[in-house]
Formats: sequence, structure tokens, C-alpha cells
Amino acid sequence: MGNTSNAVGSAVTPVTVEELPGLNTLGISMARIDFAPQGINPPHTHPRATEILTVMEGRIQVGFVTSNPQNRLITKELQKGDVFVFPEGLIHFQKNVGNGYAVAIAALSSQNPGVITIANAIFGSNPDIAGDILAKAFQVDINLVYQIQSKF
Amino acid sequence: MGNTSNAVGSAVTPVTVEELPGLNTLGISMARIDFAPQGINPPHTHPRATEILTVMEGRIQVGFVTSNPQNRLITKELQKGDVFVFPEGLIHFQKNVGNGYAVAIAALSSQNPGVITIANAIFGSNPDIAGDILAKAFQVDINLVYQIQSKF
Amino acid sequence: MGNTSNAVGSAVTPVTVEELPGLNTLGISMARIDFAPQGINPPHTHPRATEILTVMEGRIQVGFVTSNPQNRLITKELQKGDVFVFPEGLIHFQKNVGNGYAVAIAALSSQNPGVITIANAIFGSNPDIAGDILAKAFQVDINLVYQIQSKF
Amino acid sequence: MGNTSNAVGSAVTPVTVEELPGLNTLGISMARIDFAPQGINPPHTHPRATEILTVMEGRIQVGFVTSNPQNRLITKELQKGDVFVFPEGLIHFQKNVGNGYAVAIAALSSQNPGVITIANAIFGSNPDIAGDILAKAFQVDINLVYQIQSKF
Amino acid sequence: MGNTSNAVGSAVTPVTVEELPGLNTLGISMARIDFAPQGINPPHTHPRATEILTVMEGRIQVGFVTSNPQNRLITKELQKGDVFVFPEGLIHFQKNVGNGYAVAIAALSSQNPGVITIANAIFGSNPDIAGDILAKAFQVDINLVYQIQSKF
Amino acid sequence: MGNTSNAVGSAVTPVTVEELPGLNTLGISMARIDFAPQGINPPHTHPRATEILTVMEGRIQVGFVTSNPQNRLITKELQKGDVFVFPEGLIHFQKNVGNGYAVAIAALSSQNPGVITIANAIFGSNPDIAGDILAKAFQVDINLVYQIQSKF
Repeated sequence: MGNTSNAVGSAVTPVTVEELPGLNTLGISMARIDFAPQGINPPHTHPRATEILTVMEGRIQVGFVTSNPQNRLITKELQKGDVFVFPEGLIHFQKNVGNGYAVAIAALSSQNPGVITIANAIFGSNPDIAGDILAKAFQVDINLVYQIQSKF
Repeated sequence: MGNTSNAVGSAVTPVTVEELPGLNTLGISMARIDFAPQGINPPHTHPRATEILTVMEGRIQVGFVTSNPQNRLITKELQKGDVFVFPEGLIHFQKNVGNGYAVAIAALSSQNPGVITIANAIFGSNPDIAGDILAKAFQVDINLVYQIQSKF
Repeated sequence: MGNTSNAVGSAVTPVTVEELPGLNTLGISMARIDFAPQGINPPHTHPRATEILTVMEGRIQVGFVTSNPQNRLITKELQKGDVFVFPEGLIHFQKNVGNGYAVAIAALSSQNPGVITIANAIFGSNPDIAGDILAKAFQVDINLVYQIQSKF
Repeated sequence: MGNTSNAVGSAVTPVTVEELPGLNTLGISMARIDFAPQGINPPHTHPRATEILTVMEGRIQVGFVTSNPQNRLITKELQKGDVFVFPEGLIHFQKNVGNGYAVAIAALSSQNPGVITIANAIFGSNPDIAGDILAKAFQVDINLVYQIQSKF
Repeated sequence: MGNTSNAVGSAVTPVTVEELPGLNTLGISMARIDFAPQGINPPHTHPRATEILTVMEGRIQVGFVTSNPQNRLITKELQKGDVFVFPEGLIHFQKNVGNGYAVAIAALSSQNPGVITIANAIFGSNPDIAGDILAKAFQVDINLVYQIQSKF
Repeated sequence: MGNTSNAVGSAVTPVTVEELPGLNTLGISMARIDFAPQGINPPHTHPRATEILTVMEGRIQVGFVTSNPQNRLITKELQKGDVFVFPEGLIHFQKNVGNGYAVAIAALSSQNPGVITIANAIFGSNPDIAGDILAKAFQVDINLVYQIQSKF
């Protein structure tokens, strides 16, 4: 089981071409996701893969947002045995909404799907994205940008 | 020329399969991007396309962030005639850093590339993503999440 | 849980584009496989997909055979949490070698992977393949072919 | 001409990327198939290619079986000049049903199509598939499995 | 056999998705090419397919030209049973250099390969390409362009 | 700006994987095309890419010819800001029909699109295509073929 003692309360254990070189050219990978109670898998995208998720234990709320100009949020609460799909490249997230731990298995349509955690890429890049760009993009004061950046 | 009198100071005029149905199955599209002085094209991704950008007029700073776990920011200032590439699905942005207007032409490797503007998808989805999920993801107070959501 | 009271002692519950139309064009599907003690998932191929298998419960022996001219059998005993890959189009099988029930989750690199169960396709097609062809192919007496065909 | 003095009475002369390295990345290959009178090309699949067959000489019966759950046998007798298609990954076979020798040309939609001869992969793998698995899969006595395995 | 009583002394009998609708999505097609003595299959391209050619009867000279800036001509004389490959989109041709009729079978890596016969597309389009463009492109007098156009 | 002092009055400045190795696997490339007054970009094909063209300066006539058997010429006069598409593998050309210089930006759906200039490939290959083949293909006297070949 992954260690979920962290800021978001979840742990992802991937099996991609990096962990299992025999997956090369085969176009598929998997991941196990463990959730502490109230834990989230924060908003992220896979730049090269669609994901299909099966709930093994617990109750998980899932969601994804469609692209411009609609930005429609599609969300659903899943029970053990339920399955849900996150289309390639769209921003999505999960949250454990049950009382105990939750476990899900994700399959991804690439041996090298990639993961972009939005908060880390936007506010925790290395080096930082210039504060004025993020202030204008998120319509907040630049000092607030610096404050969020300091946490990532 | 696109109308750049808006919060971010830029305008994108796309030519995808939606505007030009004959592009169907042909695997390519284009966009013209106009920038007011200091205007930005805020952080966004194309879920189904790589982008190649050519600067037609002005000086434009461009950047993209690599995926987990590095989150490395690759950035460069481009002059008229320079070309830059944003790999498929990665978060990228542009900023007019010259004194006047700037113009760029983008080509995308899909007739239906899609655009996900990060700020709009995260804080402006319809309906909103639950505040507690975003508070935990961005490590900010939930009231700040509500405040940002109110602007999108 | 799938009903494993059948001749082979296993049950496959698929989630492909047939069960979940939203998978169309997304290039991925999943299946849950339940095994009774000693149950097998008999030799089969997926004509349009690679499969990646994760053991959720129990001990499962898995194997696949490479193509001509080697016909090498690659086989392994998996424990809970282990992962194994069956490359696209190759003949493969699983057997529950533990004492109790076993469960596995399979992910497939197509929304429409297809399944060809070798015994059913060869000896149970509709109508039957001519007996003399199978007798020559499997180097057995034609009456034995008729006898096997009568069971499928 | 291929030498057809063997158990099945046919010979396949392939031209794939193995014989002609220049085919690499080009997505196509060919094979010539010679048939003695009554000769068969036994049930097999190509894991990575569709096949299109043209009869050059003689009369050839061809067939393929669709996937689960139908397992429908599609079969036809071809004359010189006739063309037939075997979709990717499906089990198919040919038989010379004329009085003399027969010749066919096959084209395959991959430079590396692969060939899985069912009887050889199932009963002639190296090492053998465990007898109890095949006995259960083909619903025959395990001693019969051992007997067939001894011939491959 | 195709009728070769025409200006070039050859006849192509295609089997593509247009003649055989079942080829749709299968990624392959074939053609039989008959050559009168001295007959040619004039320079042409297939915009969506690689071609692999097998000589069934006779002696055939084949050739293709690589792309800019080399424009290298690769040419070879083939005997019965020889095989040759024309990579996707390159200009290629064949000529019967034996004493009698010749026959070849071509396989193409698309169910809809397309054929562009250079002379017909350049000098026989409908309507004609403007004479001054072709005069400058081929570095000939415009009246010569008109003269060639009148034959197509 | 490209140097347009040549026989056709145009210059193509490409940015493909050859000039920018980072484009590898990314499926896109660009080119700038400069035209002197009356300059043409002579009939050519890209064997591995669709092209989308945007006029930056001037008035440009564009055209392409469909494949056999129609050979239909599709042609249009473009103004600054207009966009046009040339489907993969089809013969196409451009001509500056304005009074001054003209500039266009082309995007291509491959990092390695290739260029086949028809006149150079047909009459300027290295070595030459045999004169009798071209005489029969273009229905002209063989001496005329030699004369055109001498210019390339």
C-alpha cells in the first residue's frame, strides 16, 4: 500500500515503462492509488493518455473539466466496482468521500503517460514562472502568487 | 487582427476543424495570436496537439513546464522570425515583452487540438470544483479559493 | 463478483466500448477476472490489444507463448499486487494456483480489444471448421476432432 | 517454389523486415504460399497485421473465425484471380481444393506481422503448457493432451 | 487480364476499399499490373501508401526517385519472383523489359492508397494549370506546355 | 528573408527535424516562403504531411490537383490573412499574383514531411530516368525529354 501521510492524503504507485521496461511499444500502463480518509488526488492531466479508473475499496468522488470554452465539470461518486473514464489530456481529480481508506486501480493508454500536477507545474516549477504572468492569469495580487509559490 | 482589449491583453484567432471543416482527418490546424503591450497568453495546454510557434512581429517571451517530478520551466525570449515548440499536452504560456504590439502564428498537430486554459478550468468550471479540493491542492485557505472562483 | 460455476472455473466481466459507449475513440478498456480454486482463464488472444494484469487477491499463474518459429512459453506465478503484461495478439492464459478464490484486474490498450478463445474458435465455430483440416493441423484422427467439436 | 513435402502440404515464403530490412517503418510485407494437392495452411493468426490474399494458381478454400461470443466461420472457395481478406488477429486457414498445385500471394499490413500457428503455440510450445490447463480448456483427457503434445 | 492496348501499354486492376468495401479500416489493398511488351506503368505516386511489388511473369525494370535535395534514382531489373518496395509518397515507375507479357502484383499499405499519375495531374488536370506556371516550373516555352496539355 | 533570385522566384526556409532536432516525435514542422513578384513555388508534394498555408503579405494564387481519375484542379486567390489546406501527398503550387513581394507561413503535419519537386524528380534525377520512359509517359518526342533533362 502506498504511504498516504502527506499534504494531499493519497499515494500513487505507477507501473509505466520506467518501472517495467518490457512495456515499451505496448501502449499501456497501470497505477494503484491509495487514499487516506478525506484524501485527494489533486487536479492533474496525463499529456499522452486516457485513463480508466476502477474503485477497489471505498467511496471515491471523481471529476474532470472539459476544454474551452465550456469548462464543464463532470463529476460522480463511485462505489466499489464502479468504473470511470478521464479522456486524454483533460484536467481531473479524485477524493475519498467514504469513512475509511479507499483504493483505485487506474489503467492508462500509453506506456509513458506522463503526469502534470497542476498546482506543482503552475506554482512549483523550477525556476518559478514570473509572478506577473501568474497574477494576470489567475487575476490575483502578485504577492499572493509569491505566497502560493513558497509552498511548492 | 484579434481584439486584445481584455483582462489578459491577447487574442487567439483559431483555424481548426470547427472553423474550416475541410481540415477533418488532415491532422493539422493553425492560430494567429495578437498581443497588446505586456499582454499574455495565459498558461494553457492542448490535450491533443504539439504546437510550433513563429513570431511575426515583436518580442515574445515563451515558456513551458515539463511533467512530474521535475516540473522544469523552459523559457526563452523570441525575436521576429524565431520559432519555438511546445510538446503535446504540456502547460505553456507567452508574454509580449516588447514595446509595441506582437503577433505570432501557431501551428498545431491536430485538426481538433483543444485548449484548456488552466485558470478557467480550475477556478472557472461550470459548476465549480468543490472548494475544499482546491484548497488542499493549492495549499491555500478555502475562502481564497472562493474569492478566485468569483472572478472566473 | 462474476459467477465462476462453469467448465473452466472463471468469469470475465469486461468494460469495453460495448458496455460503456463513452470509451469510443479513447483507446482503453478494462476487465475484472474472478477465479474459483483451480479455475483457469483458458488460452485466448486479444486481436487488437496488449493486456496488463494486476492481481488483487490470491495466487495466479500466468503464461503466454511467443510467435513462430520459437513458440516459447513465458510463465510466472504472481502474488497479490504483482503485475504482468501480455503483448498484443499473443496467446495467453491464467490459472488460480492458490487455495481460495482469486481476483485480477486487466487493462487493455483498445476500447474494442476483442477476445478469441482458442478452443471455442477452433473446435466450436459456427458452422464447424471441416474435420479434415483440423485433423491435419493438429495431427490427430478425424474422429477425435468430431468428438472435441461435439463439446463446444 | 516453396517445398511442400511436409505434414501439412504447404510452404510459406515470407518477405518481411527480417528478410528485407528496407521494409522497416514502411508498414507492409508479402508472402508466397505454395500448396501441394490437398495441402493446407493450418489455422493461424498474425498478431500485428491484416492479410489480403490473391490466388495465382489453382482452387483454394479459405476461412476465418470471428471473435467471441459468435465464433462465426466465414469460408469461401476461391478461383485464380480471386481476392480475400483476413482481418487483423483473427484465426484463419487455407486449403488447396483443386487437383493440382496451388499458389497464392499474401500481403500483410505490417513489416513485422508475426505468425502464430495455433497447433504449434498450444501443443508445441517450449516448454509445454501444463497438461491440466489444456485438458480443461479443450475438455479432453489429460493423456490425450500429452499425446498431441508429443507430435509437436 | 487487364487490357494493355493503350498509350502506355499497361493496365492496373486495383482491389481497394472502392472495389471491396470490406477493406474499410483494415489498412491494406492490392493491385494486379499487366504489361504489354515494352509497356510502362508511368511515373506516379500513392499519397497514402507504401507499395511492395512481386513479379509474377516476365522481366520488369522498376525505379523510384528520392525527395529533395538528392532526387536520387534507385532502379533495378526484376525477374519472376523478385520483390521491390516503393516508400510512401515517392515517385516511381515500372517498364516491361522482357520479350513477352509481364505481370506483377502490388500490395499497398492503405485500403485507400490513391494514385497520382504525374503526367495526368500536371498536364491533364481539369481545368488546366496555368501555362506560365508550368513553363517556369519545367523551364520550357509556354507553347510547348500548351502542346503537351492538348494530349491529356 | 529567403533569397528569391533564382529561376522560380521563390525561397523556402524550412524548420523541420533536420534544422530543429527537438521536433523529433512531435509530428509538426513549419516553413516560411518568400516570393518575388511573379515568383512561383513550383508543383511539388510532401510525401508524409498535410500542409496548411497562411498568407502574411501580398496576394498569392494557390492550387492543388486531386488524384486519379478526376485530376481536378482546385485553385484560389488568397489575400493577407487567408488560410488554405493542401491534403497529404497531393501535387500543389503557389504563385505571387500581387505587385510586390509576398510571404506565407506553412505548417506541416510531420516533423519530417519531405519535399518532392515534380520537375526536379522527373527530369533532374540523379542519374536520369531513361528517356523512352518519360517520352511515353508525357507523350512527347524523346529528344524533347533530353532537352528538358539538360536544364535540371
